[in-house]
Amino acid sequence: MPHIAIDNDLPGISGLLAQRPDTGAPLGDLANALLRAPSSLSPGERELIAAYVSERNATEFCSASHSAFAAAQLTGGEELVRAVLADPATAPVGEKMRALLRVAGEVQSAARPLSDETVAAARAAGADDTDLHDTVLIAAAFCMYNRYVSALATELPADSGHYARSAQRIVAHGYRSGHAQVPVS
Amino acid sequence: MPHIAIDNDLPGISGLLAQRPDTGAPLGDLANALLRAPSSLSPGERELIAAYVSERNATEFCSASHSAFAAAQLTGGEELVRAVLADPATAPVGEKMRALLRVAGEVQSAARPLSDETVAAARAAGADDTDLHDTVLIAAAFCMYNRYVSALATELPADSGHYARSAQRIVAHGYRSGHAQVPVS
Repeated sequence: MPHIAIDNDLPGISGLLAQRPDTGAPLGDLANALLRAPSSLSPGERELIAAYVSERNATEFCSASHSAFAAAQLTGGEELVRAVLADPATAPVGEKMRALLRVAGEVQSAARPLSDETVAAARAAGADDTDLHDTVLIAAAFCMYNRYVSALATELPADSGHYARSAQRIVAHGYRSGHAQVPVS
Repeated sequence: MPHIAIDNDLPGISGLLAQRPDTGAPLGDLANALLRAPSSLSPGERELIAAYVSERNATEFCSASHSAFAAAQLTGGEELVRAVLADPATAPVGEKMRALLRVAGEVQSAARPLSDETVAAARAAGADDTDLHDTVLIAAAFCMYNRYVSALATELPADSGHYARSAQRIVAHGYRSGHAQVPVS
């Protein structure tokens, strides 16, 4: 049961966004800027980073949501996403994405400077400043979204088809602030 | 030296917001919603939570910034803020703020449900759902801002008067998105 009263039956962050549109709007705008706006990384690649960080933070709702959103947009689908969540070092992704997942993992683990070795490895694999910036900020943002969803003990969806339906909406419409039916994480 | 090129000489998050207005705008809007918009907690109390989380994350720029912003808005000033950062359990704050700082500390430590004991103690001290929600989301958000600032190895201000000048601007004008001179954290 959530730690605060939520006057709707939406699971995960969706219930919080609907309950508090004052904070829900900027949280939705930020998700759109990070995951849907033009970037050197594709929406599927960015969702994969979000799913990986959420899995490391053990926030089931966000991990399952962004895994579904990544799978819907990446060649390789669910099998690829499962492999990344299990171990990016052995998953069948390109060297640049593998290096960026290592960046994301460092960001998830603590608020401290990326190691010079991790940055050098990402650059050697082809990552530029935009790739590094966007990966760091996506990973940092999911350290926020995950804590918000987990700390308040929000509910999981009752129906396992929830995540696939959300994926269809996100791929078609993105994260639109003020539309509380659209989950962020 | 920062891990990515920053085409300005602004320290901490200010340089990143100016460098990337596409993400800077929603990050500024979120800071305004969390720290300046109407809430059951005063702006000074919310800045104190932000400073405490930033100190726990060892992100010096954010800790010093939000300490200055809290001190400028709270009776007790710098001495009170220093006492809270050193140990909320013994700092001269009210029981509700002490309980909310414990909530913030749990959020900082990991993405997991608040303990029932911590929530019960906050409610016994007078915290309502809005206090709990806002404390959780501020603490979660600073786990993002701190990681963004620290992971990219942004610079500290060259001049120790920076934080006090920023405090004057924040108290007068808030965190205005699109105004890169105004630091978020």
